[in-house]
Amino acid sequence: MKKIKTALISISDKKNLRPLLNILKRNKIKIISSGGTYKEIKKLKFKCLEVSEFTNSPEILGGRVKTLHPKIHAGILNKRNNKAHLKDLNNNNFENIDLVIVNFYPFENILKNKNSHNKIIENIDVGGPTMVRSAAKNYKDVTVITSSNQYEELIEELKKNNGSTTLNFRRKLSRIAFTETAYYDSVISNYFNKITNTTLPNKKVFHANLVETPRYGENPHQKSGIYSKNTSMNIKQIHGKQLSYNNYNDIFAALTISKSLPQNIGTVIVKHANPCGVSIKKNRLESYKSALACDPVSAFGGIISCNFKITKNIAIELNKLFLEVVIGNDIDASALKILRAKKNLRLIDSSNYSFNEKLKFVSNNEEILVQSEDMDKFTIKDFKVVSKKKPNSKQMKNLIFAFNICRYVKSNAIVLASNETTVGIGSGQPSRLDSCQIAINKMKKFSNSNDEIVAASDAFFPFVDGIEKLIQSGVTAVVQPSGSIRDKEIIDFANQTDTILVFSKTRHFRH
Amino acid sequence: MKKIKTALISISDKKNLRPLLNILKRNKIKIISSGGTYKEIKKLKFKCLEVSEFTNSPEILGGRVKTLHPKIHAGILNKRNNKAHLKDLNNNNFENIDLVIVNFYPFENILKNKNSHNKIIENIDVGGPTMVRSAAKNYKDVTVITSSNQYEELIEELKKNNGSTTLNFRRKLSRIAFTETAYYDSVISNYFNKITNTTLPNKKVFHANLVETPRYGENPHQKSGIYSKNTSMNIKQIHGKQLSYNNYNDIFAALTISKSLPQNIGTVIVKHANPCGVSIKKNRLESYKSALACDPVSAFGGIISCNFKITKNIAIELNKLFLEVVIGNDIDASALKILRAKKNLRLIDSSNYSFNEKLKFVSNNEEILVQSEDMDKFTIKDFKVVSKKKPNSKQMKNLIFAFNICRYVKSNAIVLASNETTVGIGSGQPSRLDSCQIAINKMKKFSNSNDEIVAASDAFFPFVDGIEKLIQSGVTAVVQPSGSIRDKEIIDFANQTDTILVFSKTRHFRH
Repeated sequence: MKKIKTALISISDKKNLRPLLNILKRNKIKIISSGGTYKEIKKLKFKCLEVSEFTNSPEILGGRVKTLHPKIHAGILNKRNNKAHLKDLNNNNFENIDLVIVNFYPFENILKNKNSHNKIIENIDVGGPTMVRSAAKNYKDVTVITSSNQYEELIEELKKNNGSTTLNFRRKLSRIAFTETAYYDSVISNYFNKITNTTLPNKKVFHANLVETPRYGENPHQKSGIYSKNTSMNIKQIHGKQLSYNNYNDIFAALTISKSLPQNIGTVIVKHANPCGVSIKKNRLESYKSALACDPVSAFGGIISCNFKITKNIAIELNKLFLEVVIGNDIDASALKILRAKKNLRLIDSSNYSFNEKLKFVSNNEEILVQSEDMDKFTIKDFKVVSKKKPNSKQMKNLIFAFNICRYVKSNAIVLASNETTVGIGSGQPSRLDSCQIAINKMKKFSNSNDEIVAASDAFFPFVDGIEKLIQSGVTAVVQPSGSIRDKEIIDFANQTDTILVFSKTRHFRH
Repeated sequence: MKKIKTALISISDKKNLRPLLNILKRNKIKIISSGGTYKEIKKLKFKCLEVSEFTNSPEILGGRVKTLHPKIHAGILNKRNNKAHLKDLNNNNFENIDLVIVNFYPFENILKNKNSHNKIIENIDVGGPTMVRSAAKNYKDVTVITSSNQYEELIEELKKNNGSTTLNFRRKLSRIAFTETAYYDSVISNYFNKITNTTLPNKKVFHANLVETPRYGENPHQKSGIYSKNTSMNIKQIHGKQLSYNNYNDIFAALTISKSLPQNIGTVIVKHANPCGVSIKKNRLESYKSALACDPVSAFGGIISCNFKITKNIAIELNKLFLEVVIGNDIDASALKILRAKKNLRLIDSSNYSFNEKLKFVSNNEEILVQSEDMDKFTIKDFKVVSKKKPNSKQMKNLIFAFNICRYVKSNAIVLASNETTVGIGSGQPSRLDSCQIAINKMKKFSNSNDEIVAASDAFFPFVDGIEKLIQSGVTAVVQPSGSIRDKEIIDFANQTDTILVFSKTRHFRH
């Protein structure tokens, strides 16, 4: 238990100050402050001593140096039970500071509002983090508050303990304080990385905010939190049960694909993080129905993402199916009315979702695999026709569509498509031949398309057997990256079977 | 270009100081220092002014407060081209500090060496990070060095520019400086999270060191870096080509499985991050051969992890196969000689690898999904026999083995096993029924086992059809989590077919 006699307040966010000052006054706690905080406290008619008066040292450099003073930091940092420290304090006529209330210049907001580099640099707080770090280090004796959200808790604590705080309370605040200073400098560090185009620095710090706490992780015995680089996510749940960890995983997988498709026509169905049906037919109802037709069995309990506004006619169709989540690039009122009839169905508005982060990382034990995202759009320029038979524009469109989807299917991935709709997806196999067979089986089971079928492979065929299997099943055009020592054999085989063969510039493993 | 006249040095790591001091002397740069650094500089016979002399303020609180002084921070923080700043400086009789050389108390090492909490707290540096942050903020005028590794670069810069530094150089150092302070406080923040059992704090900061730069990411057009919470990885490459991003991904997947198996008998083969063969037969050669037999086609170009020491007889067998990576819990000299014959084959010694991190995270755009790892070992207590027919101990062993492997296969996952060896693995399918079929197809293609076959499913069967398919293919015992509304039907079906059915306590989705 530590009695508080003196508080130092230096805050950028001046919200909710009055009740805090009231409790300090009631406990006869002396207040030291400076600059805008000092003015605000005086405006609220509370007593307050200016830092410069306290330290007997002027505020200089336009405020850059005011609290960086031994009297302030000795007051915070001295160990109350250490006689040598006490002697130092007395010799220098210093006194204890028991409570530090600081929040920093809002560097993150300044960044978000696209200010000039000079203004951004000016907003790097030096004095604030130093006081917070001094107080947090000396938490055995000092209480440190780093956010206006903590005032209520502090007020409760002071009431409960007659102007004192407990060690547990101070330790918790210290933990939060060091997280704040780490977070703050992580934002600065990442800003500098960005302006200097430093993608993979020798040391890297990531920061994130807890934006959602699902009931559990991938499985009920695992804890989980959804974090964001921002303070909130740019998707919005507008109806239904709480989202689970697996929902989030599938939603992000679905949105990544949706965003890669031409705007306002794409439907993506995801199950277990893999797409099981995608279509970009221009008629949106057809787009939805076609995506579903690719594998209506797997779609059961799945996640549907429409990159267009969901309207009544789509909602009526969606309602026929059991789905976990429906994502719309907006959902209109009439559609919402229909979809809301299902109490548990989670509805997500993705109209504000955009892909802003270029790096992707995944941890494994103490290691983190970091890489740039595989996001570029394909065009005809990325494809080289290597067969004698050349694709017409419709075939080329289908090949581009199929190859784009293929990059989002877990490797080894094979996608069969017809009419800019998937008709068979083979995912997650150690053998490419098996992925071919799975895609073909799906097509045989569900497709009644009489149109031409094209195929895409995320990496090269190591042998002729895979492409042979596809051609035997009716595929007339294939796109794949090159790179096998048997590329020539594969081209020959395509020519022998009058198949269109296209080599893509890029490979697209995804695990 | 900024001429350096005064340098402030405060370092915990006192390596390589002499050449640095030589160049400072040659450029007539005044040196200010304190404590151990001051003593070291004097010992090396260089001139140096003590901080307390410079500030005319004593070092107090056993060194806790020495550089937290306006004269120090105004000297660093003033904008050289700002007249008001210059006036402040002159009025207070302060002077410029143009170069700040600081490295922090080695908080991370102190942690690693399991010191007492008090000693750990004592090693939180306050003065150092403050000087670094002041200098880094004012990088337009000030040069900041945060590691002895940067001395050589600084010396070069000063030589090249006759005692000055360029803006670009200072900006780079500033970027590194803020990364250092962020990293430092992230270590402290995570330490406090750990001692207070805070798994999912509202704000979270991660820190990592670049330990490897593969040529590219999952694909050649993606950049990549392998980071670690430590300064090096606890696996060691002892031979072969540079590891690729996909190698690392597969290696970590393989080691996670290896570590879950009984020690010194397990072989795991991984391809595209999924296991395609696992065995824990007691005879190690048999363990290897059996794991391979599960899917010898997929094993081609795969990654093999033996959680035992690889000896000559195993190496001879391994050499018959084309593999990307061989991991051994040590590899003995005679085996090494054989395996090294293949120039490109990557050999990894995993004998120092251990699983220390309990949290796992994966990013998706600006969001990060965090969850605790799914790592607990299974025992018979986690299983509940729900069929009339009860498993004997051999069957139970196989069920536990199969269910453990199942958790590491991408969902939906089905694992068929016999004799504590996988004989069919179905992975990565949106439909559980399809995963059953894939596992069965593998078994039919490659297995010639006459022993009983057991099956494990990572989540419950939603319908009877999946389990029916398994039983028709010769499976006599099945383990699965419960939870379907058709659990009763599935139990009835097991009883009708005289099948052993076991419900596990936990589900094991993995995506």
